[in-house]
Amino acid sequence: MRFGITFFPTIGPEQAAAADWYDDAVNLAVLADELGYHHVKTVEHYFFAYGGYSPDPVPLLTAIARATRRIRVATGAVIPAFNHPVQLAARLAVLDNLSRGRLDVGFGRAFLPDEFAAFQVSLDESRARFEEGVRAVERLWSEQDVVWQGTFHQFGPVTLLPRPYQDPHPPIYVATATSPASAEAAGRAGRGLQGVPAISGRHGFQDILTAYRKAWADGGHEPGEERIQISFGLFLAEDGDEARALGRTDEELYSARIAEATSAWGRARSADYPGYERLEKAGKLLHFDERLKDNQVLAGNPAEVTRQIEQLAEWYGDDVVLSFTIHSGNLPAEVSARSLRLFTERVAPAFAR
Amino acid sequence: MRFGITFFPTIGPEQAAAADWYDDAVNLAVLADELGYHHVKTVEHYFFAYGGYSPDPVPLLTAIARATRRIRVATGAVIPAFNHPVQLAARLAVLDNLSRGRLDVGFGRAFLPDEFAAFQVSLDESRARFEEGVRAVERLWSEQDVVWQGTFHQFGPVTLLPRPYQDPHPPIYVATATSPASAEAAGRAGRGLQGVPAISGRHGFQDILTAYRKAWADGGHEPGEERIQISFGLFLAEDGDEARALGRTDEELYSARIAEATSAWGRARSADYPGYERLEKAGKLLHFDERLKDNQVLAGNPAEVTRQIEQLAEWYGDDVVLSFTIHSGNLPAEVSARSLRLFTERVAPAFAR
Repeated sequence: MRFGITFFPTIGPEQAAAADWYDDAVNLAVLADELGYHHVKTVEHYFFAYGGYSPDPVPLLTAIARATRRIRVATGAVIPAFNHPVQLAARLAVLDNLSRGRLDVGFGRAFLPDEFAAFQVSLDESRARFEEGVRAVERLWSEQDVVWQGTFHQFGPVTLLPRPYQDPHPPIYVATATSPASAEAAGRAGRGLQGVPAISGRHGFQDILTAYRKAWADGGHEPGEERIQISFGLFLAEDGDEARALGRTDEELYSARIAEATSAWGRARSADYPGYERLEKAGKLLHFDERLKDNQVLAGNPAEVTRQIEQLAEWYGDDVVLSFTIHSGNLPAEVSARSLRLFTERVAPAFAR
Repeated sequence: MRFGITFFPTIGPEQAAAADWYDDAVNLAVLADELGYHHVKTVEHYFFAYGGYSPDPVPLLTAIARATRRIRVATGAVIPAFNHPVQLAARLAVLDNLSRGRLDVGFGRAFLPDEFAAFQVSLDESRARFEEGVRAVERLWSEQDVVWQGTFHQFGPVTLLPRPYQDPHPPIYVATATSPASAEAAGRAGRGLQGVPAISGRHGFQDILTAYRKAWADGGHEPGEERIQISFGLFLAEDGDEARALGRTDEELYSARIAEATSAWGRARSADYPGYERLEKAGKLLHFDERLKDNQVLAGNPAEVTRQIEQLAEWYGDDVVLSFTIHSGNLPAEVSARSLRLFTERVAPAFAR
């Protein structure tokens, strides 16, 4: 099994200055690079403490890529619905070059009504914009003299500059929170998958993986070559109770922040987002101890977290890459650094392939 | 007088790999930082060898900011007409934090018809989009709960994250190639000015400066606090003939590339861009020796370039910041490094304030 890290800030200026949060993120990524982690990933979100310190993942990932030697940098996710495909493709190609081919690109549909409202994009167009955007970016990366006659964008013939560093382009992932249909489309197209069992739940995520793996095979892609990244909060300490106390604090703040960011689902409805109106209450429904029992969050001493990961390998397969969500900004960066070190020294060896 | 550098790539993959051009740019910026240069600046352009390796200045400026300690990083320019103000404001605020307050932001109107066509923006809306975009970005940086009801964008109330590092926000410059009206608006609003006498010519640029300085005073801004950055190609060597030969080679390639990028002005017309249809032939009209005589480009040995700069100080004032366009990609990076070193050692001391 392989392991990476995810930065999902859930703070605003009242909690920590952005410049400090970024510097801590770069330092943690340098540590993760030295410790052999697979990737470092971050998000695109706006306006709210929930993700808002990362409105564009490219600058932070650039700072990280230039400070590290080996670790991959990943978006998880960028949002085609909010970006022109030429600009998204171009900016990511710059990063692919600045990192000399270490970029993985996860694309997402987004789900916060206030973000859609600010960009004057209809929630009902989200899936269509996602599909058109990913396909347009892929063609701009792969082809010259691209002519695009889509529903939302028309351009060309144009040849993107710069060309990506990776040939033909950076690996593409599809981020999906709850949708087996999205996972199926990703598998059929030979794309990677980014998932969050903390949102879908164990059985929901198993359905997503089953749909993805079947579509991968049906699409004629090499079995065993599926690319799956799954995110989990990680809180590790010699003293398991201390780790759980830290996790509880952090997750409670996360819950409050997602509740704030999703409050607009109390008013918004979209046929393209079935059940999302329940998200308004999501923050209040997450109970740390239940989530721990369901392995939606990893917290404890090394032996306890080892057992959790054994369980995850059984549930989801041992070919997945686990991505540890650390450094929300609500705990000192040293807490995250300690988790990363302890994991490498005391947990990872049991899962070396 | 103070001195900075500008990176304006005029190459494509046939001339040099993007990854190499970026790495050379970072190394030159590190040298400029050590030598005491004021800023390093780059552009936003698409599709053509003319600027296309820099479709978004933010990632390269991030790499530079993280590799340097003191030098300012500057856009020259970003284009509000092609970017949503929320995303432009947010991405630049991330860079302002990653550089701990070393960002200067030049905004421009753009002038390549093929870029406007790809983004489906009318050339005739360029000025209105520029003005709305700059004002919206400025408000997003300065205020909370911003409600924007513009011609092209409507959003809010939203509070931008992250907040800029500089208080209230990074210094704003207006890039103007030929327009005294733009310069006047910039001066009245207390904004900086970025100009290119190689495009406007000496007298054209003097008109621009006169309009700017008068409007600055009329706007009630502190006399002597005007912020003016002017770009010039720089080719410096112990042997003046060698410097001029290098300059001639580089400028001829630049001319070919601007001709290629502006060829659509053979078809396009816009009342907002009077005279731009002549740009189609611009590449063919630039003669290196005439431009050298008019101090539109700086080339020669240290004594010769010193005389050129004395002349510039007389024409444009000694309060301007000269920005040396180096590293087009058509000459080895060492040629640019030598120019920077020689300038610092043998020319700059005569202009120390």
